[in-house]
Amino acid sequence: MRHLIDTRTLTRDEALLILDTAEDMAATQQREVKKLPTLRGKSVVNLFFEDSTRTRISFEAAAKRLSADVINFSAKGSSVSKGESLKDTAQTLQAIGADGVIIRHPASGAAARLASSGWIDAGVLNAGDGTHEHPTQALLDAFTIRRRLHGEGSRGKGLDGVSVVIVGDIAHSRVARSNLWLLNALGARVSFVAPETLLPFGVRSWPVAIHHSLDTALREEQPDVVMMLRIQSERMHAAYFPNDREYARNWGLDDRRFEGLSDDTLVMHPGPMNRGLEISSRAADSSQSTVLEQVTHGVSVRMAALYLLLSGERIES
Amino acid sequence: MRHLIDTRTLTRDEALLILDTAEDMAATQQREVKKLPTLRGKSVVNLFFEDSTRTRISFEAAAKRLSADVINFSAKGSSVSKGESLKDTAQTLQAIGADGVIIRHPASGAAARLASSGWIDAGVLNAGDGTHEHPTQALLDAFTIRRRLHGEGSRGKGLDGVSVVIVGDIAHSRVARSNLWLLNALGARVSFVAPETLLPFGVRSWPVAIHHSLDTALREEQPDVVMMLRIQSERMHAAYFPNDREYARNWGLDDRRFEGLSDDTLVMHPGPMNRGLEISSRAADSSQSTVLEQVTHGVSVRMAALYLLLSGERIES
Amino acid sequence: MRHLIDTRTLTRDEALLILDTAEDMAATQQREVKKLPTLRGKSVVNLFFEDSTRTRISFEAAAKRLSADVINFSAKGSSVSKGESLKDTAQTLQAIGADGVIIRHPASGAAARLASSGWIDAGVLNAGDGTHEHPTQALLDAFTIRRRLHGEGSRGKGLDGVSVVIVGDIAHSRVARSNLWLLNALGARVSFVAPETLLPFGVRSWPVAIHHSLDTALREEQPDVVMMLRIQSERMHAAYFPNDREYARNWGLDDRRFEGLSDDTLVMHPGPMNRGLEISSRAADSSQSTVLEQVTHGVSVRMAALYLLLSGERIES
Repeated sequence: MRHLIDTRTLTRDEALLILDTAEDMAATQQREVKKLPTLRGKSVVNLFFEDSTRTRISFEAAAKRLSADVINFSAKGSSVSKGESLKDTAQTLQAIGADGVIIRHPASGAAARLASSGWIDAGVLNAGDGTHEHPTQALLDAFTIRRRLHGEGSRGKGLDGVSVVIVGDIAHSRVARSNLWLLNALGARVSFVAPETLLPFGVRSWPVAIHHSLDTALREEQPDVVMMLRIQSERMHAAYFPNDREYARNWGLDDRRFEGLSDDTLVMHPGPMNRGLEISSRAADSSQSTVLEQVTHGVSVRMAALYLLLSGERIES
Repeated sequence: MRHLIDTRTLTRDEALLILDTAEDMAATQQREVKKLPTLRGKSVVNLFFEDSTRTRISFEAAAKRLSADVINFSAKGSSVSKGESLKDTAQTLQAIGADGVIIRHPASGAAARLASSGWIDAGVLNAGDGTHEHPTQALLDAFTIRRRLHGEGSRGKGLDGVSVVIVGDIAHSRVARSNLWLLNALGARVSFVAPETLLPFGVRSWPVAIHHSLDTALREEQPDVVMMLRIQSERMHAAYFPNDREYARNWGLDDRRFEGLSDDTLVMHPGPMNRGLEISSRAADSSQSTVLEQVTHGVSVRMAALYLLLSGERIES
Repeated sequence: MRHLIDTRTLTRDEALLILDTAEDMAATQQREVKKLPTLRGKSVVNLFFEDSTRTRISFEAAAKRLSADVINFSAKGSSVSKGESLKDTAQTLQAIGADGVIIRHPASGAAARLASSGWIDAGVLNAGDGTHEHPTQALLDAFTIRRRLHGEGSRGKGLDGVSVVIVGDIAHSRVARSNLWLLNALGARVSFVAPETLLPFGVRSWPVAIHHSLDTALREEQPDVVMMLRIQSERMHAAYFPNDREYARNWGLDDRRFEGLSDDTLVMHPGPMNRGLEISSRAADSSQSTVLEQVTHGVSVRMAALYLLLSGERIES
């Protein structure tokens, strides 16, 4: 693995290698001194063309725990906004000696372009590109599910037969896409729940069941996991729904629906949550909710990805 | 001490412990290599909901001198500004493994809420919350006074009998409040000097003398210390004064008033100064001025606070 | 050398010392672990009053490779923008214990003022001040030329007899000025090519040949190096040229002019480039182009400057 661009092309073995390495990393985070010397002397650049404080600090914490030097490069106000091309930016990072580049970009395909261009030797980690993918989010989600279902340290295991229902604005969600591909590779069964207007073009050729009613989906899919996506109000108001209340009533995991779930059904959300909109506080703060574990595991999964890509012990893809 | 939220609830012994520890830290800053391994492997987050470059870099320098990893989290443009609650932000920082959170927030009580909520295990340091408190500023001020009056390395000593006059917009000043409580705990005698409109509600039940004339206060209080607060022009113009000149004439430490002080009266200001408004350049740059020592001691005091809260050798409050 | 403010007052020996030290630094950057312990425990502040992501991350990478702690201080939104003087900012940095200050400022002379003021003991590195100087850019350019002409590790050598043509908005270019003085000190022959309106006042008293036609200059100067300056479109449109096309036709290194160069003429640009305006992609991406080497060598040259200024083994200027 030289880069981590998507989960669509990740094999089951590669996915398990990352998850198992994340188990090793998680174990080190229980120690008094959480810092490892693994990437000492390596330089990692957070190249963010979109604001995302949560994702940025998760990667920054992960890289620093591995003793890498981290340089934050927010493209706002930089020469990039003065018209510099992605190519020139990439070559600059190459030239200053970046060993890893974590890229977040509004354009789908930006991370792949950076990785395959030959512009840089650095390992590229996609931290979200347009509506395409957000692979570390899916990996931390899978890690969270595996830990809840199979326990800590359950190395080597996939998610065979697990039923995962993903709900919300699938059309614009890179999180939904990355989860779909990864969960399939790990043997899980995925369903999307959304109104027709919030489903992506071509979704019917993907390995996923489609529902237009959340209540029906929860009844028929007997989910082990219900994953709620974050609603972007601007987007929702623009095209699809007159108001928040109607959205919550039709597509939210409200108290009533949460009560109807089996007691061991997991409730997931990539954060930050709109409480009262796509998820009720009762659901979000319940013991079935994995919201905070997801954030914690995010650091372990990103440590694993950085380690596998930058430590010099790369596996060839 | 698990958190440092205010000075109002700080005992004299706790305050002296911080000041004495700051003496130890200040001594290390004289060495060729100023860096200590004390907090190696610890993660400190600067969580700033208000801009304050000076305070942020002082804490950042202090944490780095102790070998902690520092992550800057400016709430501007983050998911916080998209409506994320303080709770969700706090839990995120907890989940990524923050050992210490330095919070600056426009709302009074935000730091206390963060510390007492149970949302995080991290030690919380209040770097200014609304008009409530700014405890490290008061501690560095006390440290500065103690060093000037009692000399370097004067461990164990309080400020008994010292007369401190604080001048300006008391109503909106967390610096004035934090100084009042701390100076009282250390045995000093505090006076506030301000027009009635710039005094906080309820001030007459506080342990402080009140003056409406700076000249009277300087004559009657025989101050060992005159502490000028920073004027926020927007605020002043909005409600209280027609212009800067009138403010300076009535409430500024101008050359005439500075000349009238005893030669060993200290002149303090938390910075940044409005020269010519609340303080003249002659006063600010005199040998009686402690403005720069305050900044220097800020790093030592913040090192001490971080050490006491995060090193695992916490005293229970 | 206590500070690095300009190249105008740099002697040939001082310049060679920096370039030779940069050779040592560049050698270390070939190793598996690129980090050196040289500046461990030192604090370096990036004090940027203008945005410049490229220059900032180059200095940040250089300082971190030498194990210094780096604090980024963007003056935007700081107390500086609330009217704090450069003096007060400087004294604050002094007071928090900065060992080095890298300053970028829109006012010509700001770096010199900071260095000569007595406000700080820290070593000052000018990262660009108004239209005055940008010395590390000139040093990395000279390093790049020397490596191309004399080979890697060519210590002690100057650029005697080398012909360098600098093209574009000379009037507003600190890069052009810094290059002029340094190249002269190293024995090179410099020509400026620009319309009269883009030449600085007093240029005819400088040690430089002037051309008003790029084609004439390329023919008559027989350049070893053609250095294209970045065009700021706002500036250009405001005063001098109706449109980009006319600029490119008259003053750009387009494909035709690039073809006319000798095969070993170097093509330089400080970046970021406006492809199709001052330089064609063919020229920029050719093997004669040194654009990426310039960025790489920027880190080595800045490591050298930081080392010479901050390591305690300072040469007296």
